[in-house]
Amino acid sequence: MRQQLVFFVTLVMLASCTVKKSGERDEVPGTISADVEHASGDSNAVSMESLFGKPAHEIKTIGILVYNGVNDLDVIGPRYVLGQAMGVETKLIAINKGNIKTVMGVELVPNTVIDSVSRLDVLIIPGGFTGTVEAVYNKALHTWIRKIDETTVYTGAVCTGVWILGATGLLEGKRASSNWYREEEFLEKFKAIPANERYTHDGKYWTSAGVTAGMDMSLAIMQEIYGSNYAQAVMLDMEYDPHPPLLGGTPDRTKPAIARMMRTLYDGGINPLIDSLEKRSGPKIIQ
Amino acid sequence: MRQQLVFFVTLVMLASCTVKKSGERDEVPGTISADVEHASGDSNAVSMESLFGKPAHEIKTIGILVYNGVNDLDVIGPRYVLGQAMGVETKLIAINKGNIKTVMGVELVPNTVIDSVSRLDVLIIPGGFTGTVEAVYNKALHTWIRKIDETTVYTGAVCTGVWILGATGLLEGKRASSNWYREEEFLEKFKAIPANERYTHDGKYWTSAGVTAGMDMSLAIMQEIYGSNYAQAVMLDMEYDPHPPLLGGTPDRTKPAIARMMRTLYDGGINPLIDSLEKRSGPKIIQ
Repeated sequence: MRQQLVFFVTLVMLASCTVKKSGERDEVPGTISADVEHASGDSNAVSMESLFGKPAHEIKTIGILVYNGVNDLDVIGPRYVLGQAMGVETKLIAINKGNIKTVMGVELVPNTVIDSVSRLDVLIIPGGFTGTVEAVYNKALHTWIRKIDETTVYTGAVCTGVWILGATGLLEGKRASSNWYREEEFLEKFKAIPANERYTHDGKYWTSAGVTAGMDMSLAIMQEIYGSNYAQAVMLDMEYDPHPPLLGGTPDRTKPAIARMMRTLYDGGINPLIDSLEKRSGPKIIQ
Repeated sequence: MRQQLVFFVTLVMLASCTVKKSGERDEVPGTISADVEHASGDSNAVSMESLFGKPAHEIKTIGILVYNGVNDLDVIGPRYVLGQAMGVETKLIAINKGNIKTVMGVELVPNTVIDSVSRLDVLIIPGGFTGTVEAVYNKALHTWIRKIDETTVYTGAVCTGVWILGATGLLEGKRASSNWYREEEFLEKFKAIPANERYTHDGKYWTSAGVTAGMDMSLAIMQEIYGSNYAQAVMLDMEYDPHPPLLGGTPDRTKPAIARMMRTLYDGGINPLIDSLEKRSGPKIIQ
């Protein structure tokens, strides 16, 4: 319904922009207000064109990969933000048939499977934990990603999903970011250039830091395609003015003992799996 | 799996805290490092107790309400954060049997239905759009929420989910926040005291601003129950160091024409529904 609503923007634009109520909070002057006055000439009669302009790219299909063990927010963050693109079909695409369970145990019903998808305008590859490591060794998946990538305007990955994209070889020589966990080590395994940013855009390839960074990256993709005004409308819809209750979110901003504990926790969960998968993968993928 | 991993914290704590590698990023000194040195005496041999301490409350069951048209991130943000509570069962609880579709069209498989749940330690009520307005007029749902509230340590609501909680009467005389859209107007309808905060905590009742604010509120709940160190571990897991690509997320930080357009868009979607539901609701609920 939210998607349908977004389609109604064109219908309500004139009404919304010719009605001006006194004392509305959005009448508060400021840099942004000044910007829109400048952009529209008159915020009482701003036109669709002056507010949103024409998209930089024609996007019709967005696909987000899902699999057992995928991180809940790696999927739903980008799905929510990119799903607000106007006139676009956004699908959750599973590796295999059937429902999937996220890393937190939430059961999702995918829209389709990779074997039924031959082209996409935007592909997003979310991360996770052990399920992601398994996908890093899934050569049939890599073949599909490379085939889809030939058709995309943008190919992106979130968090440890960057490991999957990296394993396809598509990040070789590209600046990239990924989850904080062993970030440089993994990016270098895939011959990517560690950028250590919240999200990184190198040519058509977008990569982000962990989990919640997928929302920032997706908003930046919306801004690139539909412009800042459209991205700002999406940000207001999701009331995205974050105020974490305490400092944290990166190893540098986290108490050393906690960051070490988390890294050791992750090592204990994936190192044995990488060892066993590496043994039967033939040509080395990670080690 | 992530949940299971969290249970392993106790097993890996000593290992993680007795291994100190030179040049680790988390060795960077700073206020937080100083804090942990102070808290633990020695970050090389910090104990489980000094790092996490005892929970302020014993929490065993967390339920998040879901329904057709619920906002994807209102559900998955809190589900992801609160689901990392140690030894806790976290359920998505549907109003009716069967799968639900989010406001963005994602199909979820709930864990159970309200008729099968008689008590919870924490109840979270997410918002959405027209599906939320329907829930505001669902008196059987209100009865269930009031019954569950008698058993909770915390009852919370995110975004327009605050309208549902407000309709039960449980927010009367309580400070509360909600989605930016007509925030004071709706809170006053439910005799709550508008706090206009990112999230608000009045006694056992937690309420938050729209969509993404549910993550901030959930982290604050984790901090209250398990302490700052545990909340910081969860923040690092989700790499929650947000960097939106542009200014926005509240009406005051949004171009006036865009904020008016969004408000008019929402008015057009829900006002006719409120009018029709109000006519058959008997005692007035909103109007």
